[in-house]
Amino acid sequence: MFRGDNMTQGLKKSLKECGALMYGNFTLASGEKSTYYIDIKKASTDPKVLGEIAKGLASLIKENDLRCNRLAGIVLGSIPIAVALSLETGIPYVMVRKERKEHGTARTIEGTLNSGEKVIVVEDVVTSALSASEAVKTLREQGALVEDVIAVVDRKGGGKERLEAMGLNFHPLLTAEQLLEE
Amino acid sequence: MFRGDNMTQGLKKSLKECGALMYGNFTLASGEKSTYYIDIKKASTDPKVLGEIAKGLASLIKENDLRCNRLAGIVLGSIPIAVALSLETGIPYVMVRKERKEHGTARTIEGTLNSGEKVIVVEDVVTSALSASEAVKTLREQGALVEDVIAVVDRKGGGKERLEAMGLNFHPLLTAEQLLEE
Repeated sequence: MFRGDNMTQGLKKSLKECGALMYGNFTLASGEKSTYYIDIKKASTDPKVLGEIAKGLASLIKENDLRCNRLAGIVLGSIPIAVALSLETGIPYVMVRKERKEHGTARTIEGTLNSGEKVIVVEDVVTSALSASEAVKTLREQGALVEDVIAVVDRKGGGKERLEAMGLNFHPLLTAEQLLEE
Repeated sequence: MFRGDNMTQGLKKSLKECGALMYGNFTLASGEKSTYYIDIKKASTDPKVLGEIAKGLASLIKENDLRCNRLAGIVLGSIPIAVALSLETGIPYVMVRKERKEHGTARTIEGTLNSGEKVIVVEDVVTSALSASEAVKTLREQGALVEDVIAVVDRKGGGKERLEAMGLNFHPLLTAEQLLEE
Protein backbone atom coordinates (compact mmCIF):
# COMPACT_ATOMS: atom_id res chain seq x y z
CA MET A 1 0.00 0.00 0.00
CA PHE A 2 1.16 3.50 -0.82
CA ARG A 3 0.20 4.86 2.61
CA GLY A 4 2.08 2.04 4.33
CA ASP A 5 5.10 2.64 2.12
CA ASN A 6 5.14 6.33 2.98
CA MET A 7 5.02 5.49 6.66
CA THR A 8 7.86 2.98 6.28
CA GLN A 9 9.97 5.51 4.38
CA GLY A 10 9.30 8.20 6.98
CA LEU A 11 10.17 5.90 9.86
CA LYS A 12 13.38 4.70 8.14
CA LYS A 13 14.45 8.32 7.70
CA SER A 14 13.66 9.19 11.33
CA LEU A 15 15.48 6.13 12.71
CA LYS A 16 18.59 7.10 10.75
CA GLU A 17 18.38 10.80 11.61
CA CYS A 18 18.13 10.16 15.36
CA GLY A 19 21.29 8.03 15.23
CA ALA A 20 19.62 4.69 16.02
CA LEU A 21 21.50 2.94 13.19
CA MET A 22 25.21 2.53 14.03
CA TYR A 23 27.98 0.88 11.98
CA GLY A 24 30.99 -0.83 13.65
CA ASN A 25 31.79 -4.08 15.43
CA PHE A 26 29.13 -5.12 17.88
CA THR A 27 28.32 -8.14 20.02
CA LEU A 28 24.57 -8.60 20.25
CA ALA A 29 22.63 -9.79 23.31
CA SER A 30 22.51 -13.23 21.65
CA GLY A 31 26.34 -13.36 21.59
CA GLU A 32 26.46 -13.01 17.79
CA LYS A 33 28.77 -10.50 16.10
CA SER A 34 27.38 -7.81 13.82
CA THR A 35 28.67 -4.94 11.69
CA TYR A 36 25.69 -2.80 12.62
CA TYR A 37 23.69 -2.12 15.73
CA ILE A 38 20.21 -0.68 16.08
CA ASP A 39 20.19 1.44 19.24
CA ILE A 40 16.43 1.61 19.44
CA LYS A 41 16.62 3.63 22.68
CA LYS A 42 17.96 6.55 20.61
CA ALA A 43 14.61 6.42 18.83
CA SER A 44 12.35 5.59 21.76
CA THR A 45 13.68 8.43 23.96
CA ASP A 46 12.97 10.98 21.21
CA PRO A 47 9.26 11.86 21.45
CA LYS A 48 8.98 12.70 17.73
CA VAL A 49 10.38 9.33 16.60
CA LEU A 50 8.55 7.45 19.37
CA GLY A 51 5.30 9.02 18.23
CA GLU A 52 5.98 7.86 14.65
CA ILE A 53 6.74 4.33 15.86
CA ALA A 54 3.47 4.28 17.84
CA LYS A 55 1.47 5.48 14.84
CA GLY A 56 3.17 2.84 12.64
CA LEU A 57 2.42 0.02 15.06
CA ALA A 58 -1.18 1.23 15.52
CA SER A 59 -1.62 1.04 11.73
CA LEU A 60 -0.03 -2.41 11.67
CA ILE A 61 -2.52 -3.62 14.32
CA LYS A 62 -5.42 -2.14 12.36
CA GLU A 63 -4.33 -3.38 8.92
CA ASN A 64 -3.78 -6.92 10.22
CA ASP A 65 -7.04 -6.74 12.19
CA LEU A 66 -5.26 -7.88 15.38
CA ARG A 67 -7.53 -7.94 18.43
CA CYS A 68 -6.44 -7.85 22.05
CA ASN A 69 -7.41 -6.85 25.58
CA ARG A 70 -3.90 -5.70 26.45
CA LEU A 71 -0.47 -4.97 25.05
CA ALA A 72 2.67 -6.28 26.76
CA GLY A 73 6.01 -4.46 26.84
CA ILE A 74 9.24 -6.20 27.85
CA VAL A 75 11.57 -4.59 30.41
CA LEU A 76 13.36 -2.40 29.56
CA GLY A 77 13.71 -1.89 25.83
CA SER A 78 10.15 -2.12 24.60
CA ILE A 79 8.43 -0.43 27.57
CA PRO A 80 8.51 3.07 26.01
CA ILE A 81 7.11 1.63 22.77
CA ALA A 82 4.31 -0.22 24.58
CA VAL A 83 3.50 2.94 26.57
CA ALA A 84 3.35 5.11 23.44
CA LEU A 85 1.25 2.52 21.59
CA SER A 86 -1.09 2.26 24.59
CA LEU A 87 -1.56 6.05 24.60
CA GLU A 88 -2.07 6.04 20.81
CA THR A 89 -4.64 3.22 20.78
CA GLY A 90 -6.23 3.43 24.25
CA ILE A 91 -5.38 -0.25 24.87
CA PRO A 92 -3.97 -0.87 28.38
CA TYR A 93 -0.65 -2.67 28.76
CA VAL A 94 1.37 -4.81 31.14
CA MET A 95 5.13 -4.88 31.66
CA VAL A 96 6.94 -8.22 31.66
CA ARG A 97 10.03 -8.31 33.85
CA LYS A 98 12.86 -10.73 33.30
CA GLU A 99 13.39 -11.18 37.03
CA ARG A 100 11.43 -11.00 40.24
CA LYS A 101 11.25 -7.99 42.52
CA GLU A 102 13.44 -8.02 45.61
CA HIS A 103 10.79 -6.55 47.89
CA GLY A 104 7.00 -6.48 47.87
CA THR A 105 4.84 -8.91 45.94
CA ALA A 106 6.98 -11.24 43.85
CA ARG A 107 5.71 -11.26 40.26
CA THR A 108 7.01 -11.15 36.76
CA ILE A 109 4.18 -9.11 35.31
CA GLU A 110 3.45 -5.51 36.35
CA GLY A 111 -0.04 -4.19 35.71
CA THR A 112 -3.41 -5.93 35.63
CA LEU A 113 -3.72 -9.18 33.68
CA ASN A 114 -6.77 -11.42 33.93
CA SER A 115 -6.75 -15.07 32.89
CA GLY A 116 -8.14 -15.58 29.38
CA GLU A 117 -7.27 -12.09 28.17
CA LYS A 118 -5.78 -11.73 24.71
CA VAL A 119 -2.40 -10.03 24.72
CA ILE A 120 -0.19 -8.70 21.91
CA VAL A 121 3.53 -8.66 22.77
CA VAL A 122 5.35 -5.48 21.69
CA GLU A 123 9.07 -5.83 20.98
CA ASP A 124 11.65 -3.28 19.85
CA VAL A 125 14.34 -5.07 17.81
CA VAL A 126 13.96 -8.81 17.21
CA THR A 127 16.97 -10.96 16.28
CA SER A 128 16.49 -14.50 17.59
CA ALA A 129 13.34 -13.51 19.55
CA LEU A 130 14.63 -15.14 22.73
CA SER A 131 13.45 -12.23 24.86
CA ALA A 132 10.01 -12.13 23.17
CA SER A 133 9.59 -15.91 23.46
CA GLU A 134 10.35 -15.78 27.20
CA ALA A 135 7.84 -12.98 27.65
CA VAL A 136 5.19 -15.03 25.81
CA LYS A 137 5.89 -18.02 28.09
CA THR A 138 5.50 -15.84 31.21
CA LEU A 139 2.24 -14.37 29.89
CA ARG A 140 0.85 -17.78 28.95
CA GLU A 141 1.77 -19.15 32.40
CA GLN A 142 -0.41 -16.36 33.82
CA GLY A 143 -3.33 -17.46 31.65
CA ALA A 144 -3.01 -14.95 28.81
CA LEU A 145 -3.85 -15.90 25.23
CA VAL A 146 -0.93 -14.73 23.09
CA GLU A 147 -1.07 -15.16 19.31
CA ASP A 148 0.75 -12.11 18.00
CA VAL A 149 4.13 -10.44 18.47
CA ILE A 150 4.67 -7.04 16.87
CA ALA A 151 8.08 -5.36 16.59
CA VAL A 152 9.73 -2.22 15.25
CA VAL A 153 12.62 -3.96 13.46
CA ASP A 154 13.22 -7.60 12.46
CA ARG A 155 16.94 -8.38 12.20
CA LYS A 156 16.03 -11.78 10.72
CA GLY A 157 18.14 -13.91 13.02
CA GLY A 158 15.66 -16.77 13.36
CA GLY A 159 13.14 -14.81 15.39
CA LYS A 160 10.18 -15.38 13.09
CA GLU A 161 10.86 -19.14 13.04
CA ARG A 162 11.21 -19.33 16.84
CA LEU A 163 7.94 -17.47 17.34
CA GLU A 164 6.05 -19.45 14.69
CA ALA A 165 7.19 -22.69 16.38
CA MET A 166 5.33 -21.41 19.46
CA GLY A 167 2.15 -20.88 17.44
CA LEU A 168 2.68 -17.10 17.16
CA ASN A 169 2.30 -14.71 14.26
CA PHE A 170 5.16 -12.24 13.94
CA HIS A 171 4.52 -8.75 12.53
CA PRO A 172 7.56 -6.48 12.17
CA LEU A 173 7.13 -2.86 11.06
CA LEU A 174 10.50 -2.88 9.22
CA THR A 175 13.18 -5.41 8.41
CA ALA A 176 16.85 -4.56 9.04
CA GLU A 177 17.37 -4.96 5.25
CA GLN A 178 14.86 -2.17 4.64
CA LEU A 179 16.54 0.00 7.26
CA LEU A 180 20.06 -0.62 5.88
CA GLU A 181 19.18 0.13 2.24
CA GLU A 182 19.77 3.71 1.10
CA MET B 1 -6.09 28.09 41.15
CA PHE B 2 -9.49 26.76 40.22
CA ARG B 3 -8.13 24.98 37.13
CA GLY B 4 -5.38 23.30 39.15
CA ASP B 5 -7.91 22.22 41.77
CA ASN B 6 -10.14 20.65 39.14
CA MET B 7 -7.20 18.74 37.72
CA THR B 8 -6.20 17.54 41.20
CA GLN B 9 -9.76 16.41 41.92
CA GLY B 10 -9.98 14.61 38.58
CA LEU B 11 -6.68 12.84 39.09
CA LYS B 12 -7.59 11.81 42.67
CA LYS B 13 -10.81 10.29 41.35
CA SER B 14 -9.02 8.45 38.54
CA LEU B 15 -6.29 7.09 40.85
CA LYS B 16 -8.96 5.67 43.17
CA GLU B 17 -11.14 4.30 40.37
CA CYS B 18 -8.27 2.40 38.74
CA GLY B 19 -7.47 0.70 42.07
CA ALA B 20 -4.11 2.39 42.64
CA LEU B 21 -4.98 3.16 46.29
CA MET B 22 -4.99 0.01 48.42
CA TYR B 23 -5.66 -0.37 52.17
CA GLY B 24 -4.04 -3.16 54.23
CA ASN B 25 -0.68 -3.97 55.81
CA PHE B 26 2.24 -3.17 53.56
CA THR B 27 6.02 -3.05 53.80
CA LEU B 28 7.36 -0.25 51.62
CA ALA B 29 10.59 -0.34 49.60
CA SER B 30 12.16 1.69 52.43
CA GLY B 31 11.35 -1.09 54.92
CA GLU B 32 8.71 1.02 56.67
CA LYS B 33 5.25 -0.39 57.44
CA SER B 34 2.14 1.33 56.09
CA THR B 35 -1.63 0.87 56.26
CA TYR B 36 -1.99 1.95 52.63
CA TYR B 37 -0.11 1.38 49.42
CA ILE B 38 -0.19 3.38 46.22
CA ASP B 39 0.20 0.90 43.37
CA ILE B 40 1.06 3.55 40.81
CA LYS B 41 1.52 0.91 38.10
CA LYS B 42 -2.26 0.34 38.21
CA ALA B 43 -2.50 3.97 37.08
CA SER B 44 0.44 4.11 34.72
CA THR B 45 -0.60 1.01 32.75
CA ASP B 46 -4.06 2.50 32.12
CA PRO B 47 -3.72 4.89 29.16
CA LYS B 48 -6.59 7.11 30.33
CA VAL B 49 -5.10 7.68 33.79
CA LEU B 50 -1.56 7.88 32.42
CA GLY B 51 -2.69 10.58 30.00
CA GLU B 52 -4.22 12.55 32.90
CA ILE B 53 -0.99 12.22 34.91
CA ALA B 54 1.02 13.48 31.91
CA LYS B 55 -1.29 16.48 31.46
CA GLY B 56 -1.08 17.24 35.19
CA LEU B 57 2.73 17.13 35.22
CA ALA B 58 2.92 19.20 32.02
CA SER B 59 0.80 21.88 33.73
CA LEU B 60 2.99 21.68 36.85
CA ILE B 61 6.11 22.28 34.71
CA LYS B 62 4.43 25.21 32.99
CA GLU B 63 2.97 26.81 36.12
CA ASN B 64 6.31 26.59 37.95
CA ASP B 65 8.14 27.80 34.84
CA LEU B 66 10.57 24.84 35.04
CA ARG B 67 13.02 24.72 32.16
CA CYS B 68 14.99 21.69 30.98
CA ASN B 69 16.65 19.99 28.02
CA ARG B 70 15.55 16.53 29.09
CA LEU B 71 13.34 14.63 31.46
CA ALA B 72 14.67 11.59 33.36
CA GLY B 73 12.60 8.56 34.31
CA ILE B 74 13.77 6.00 36.88
CA VAL B 75 13.64 2.29 36.06
CA LEU B 76 11.06 0.86 36.29
CA GLY B 77 8.28 2.70 38.07
CA SER B 78 8.50 6.17 36.59
CA ILE B 79 9.48 5.20 33.03
CA PRO B 80 5.87 5.11 31.73
CA ILE B 81 5.24 8.51 33.35
CA ALA B 82 8.39 10.02 31.83
CA VAL B 83 7.46 8.56 28.41
CA ALA B 84 3.91 9.96 28.56
CA LEU B 85 5.18 13.37 29.74
CA SER B 86 7.77 13.37 26.95
CA LEU B 87 5.06 12.68 24.36
CA GLU B 88 2.82 15.35 25.94
CA THR B 89 5.50 18.08 26.04
CA GLY B 90 7.87 17.10 23.20
CA ILE B 91 10.81 17.12 25.65
CA PRO B 92 13.14 14.09 25.16
CA TYR B 93 13.96 11.89 28.14
CA VAL B 94 16.58 9.52 29.49
CA MET B 95 16.10 6.40 31.61
CA VAL B 96 18.19 5.98 34.76
CA ARG B 97 18.91 2.35 35.64
CA LYS B 98 19.69 1.21 39.15
CA GLU B 99 22.25 -1.32 37.90
CA ARG B 100 24.55 -1.82 34.96
CA LYS B 101 23.75 -3.88 31.87
CA GLU B 102 25.17 -7.40 31.73
CA HIS B 103 26.18 -7.16 28.07
CA GLY B 104 26.98 -4.31 25.70
CA THR B 105 28.05 -0.86 26.83
CA ALA B 106 28.00 -0.59 30.61
CA ARG B 107 26.07 2.55 31.61
CA THR B 108 23.53 3.66 34.10
CA ILE B 109 21.75 6.08 31.79
CA GLU B 110 19.89 5.01 28.63
CA GLY B 111 19.31 7.64 25.97
CA THR B 112 21.31 10.70 24.95
CA LEU B 113 22.60 13.00 27.70
CA ASN B 114 25.13 15.75 27.04
CA SER B 115 27.19 17.37 29.77
CA GLY B 116 25.73 20.66 30.94
CA GLU B 117 22.17 19.79 29.99
CA LYS B 118 19.41 20.67 32.41
CA VAL B 119 17.36 17.65 33.49
CA ILE B 120 14.11 17.32 35.46
CA VAL B 121 13.76 14.02 37.33
CA VAL B 122 10.29 12.45 37.08
CA GLU B 123 9.27 10.18 39.96
CA ASP B 124 6.07 8.23 40.58
CA VAL B 125 5.53 7.94 44.35
CA VAL B 126 8.04 9.61 46.67
CA THR B 127 8.39 8.51 50.30
CA SER B 128 11.96 9.05 51.51
CA ALA B 129 13.15 9.96 47.96
CA LEU B 130 16.05 7.51 48.16
CA SER B 131 15.47 6.33 44.61
CA ALA B 132 15.14 9.88 43.25
CA SER B 133 18.25 11.05 45.13
CA GLU B 134 20.31 8.19 43.66
CA ALA B 135 19.05 9.04 40.17
CA VAL B 136 20.03 12.69 40.69
CA LYS B 137 23.56 11.60 41.80
CA THR B 138 23.95 9.43 38.67
CA LEU B 139 22.76 12.26 36.41
CA ARG B 140 25.05 14.80 38.10
CA GLU B 141 28.01 12.40 37.77
CA GLN B 142 27.29 12.41 34.03
CA GLY B 143 27.45 16.21 33.96
CA ALA B 144 23.73 16.99 34.04
CA LEU B 145 22.38 20.03 35.88
CA VAL B 146 19.53 18.83 38.06
CA GLU B 147 17.53 21.34 40.11
CA ASP B 148 14.02 19.93 40.06
CA VAL B 149 12.29 16.65 40.92
CA ILE B 150 8.62 16.28 40.00
CA ALA B 151 6.41 13.44 41.24
CA VAL B 152 2.86 12.15 41.03
CA VAL B 153 2.38 11.55 44.79
CA ASP B 154 4.35 12.70 47.85
CA ARG B 155 3.91 10.29 50.77
CA LYS B 156 5.74 12.80 52.99
CA GLY B 157 8.30 10.42 54.45
CA GLY B 158 11.21 12.85 54.45
CA GLY B 159 11.59 12.97 50.68
CA LYS B 160 11.25 16.74 50.34
CA GLU B 161 13.87 17.28 53.04
CA ARG B 162 16.30 14.79 51.50
CA LEU B 163 15.97 16.41 48.09
CA GLU B 164 16.23 19.97 49.44
CA ALA B 165 19.45 18.99 51.24
CA MET B 166 20.84 18.17 47.78
CA GLY B 167 19.89 21.62 46.48
CA LEU B 168 16.78 20.37 44.69
CA ASN B 169 13.27 21.74 44.45
CA PHE B 170 10.57 19.12 44.90
CA HIS B 171 7.24 19.50 43.10
CA PRO B 172 4.62 16.81 43.80
CA LEU B 173 1.32 16.81 41.91
CA LEU B 174 -0.57 15.40 44.90
CA THR B 175 0.19 14.58 48.52
CA ALA B 176 -0.88 11.23 49.98
CA GLU B 177 -3.07 13.22 52.41
CA GLN B 178 -4.97 14.71 49.49
CA LEU B 179 -5.33 11.28 47.91
CA LEU B 180 -6.54 9.65 51.16
CA GLU B 181 -9.18 12.29 51.98
CA GLU B 182 -12.70 11.56 50.74
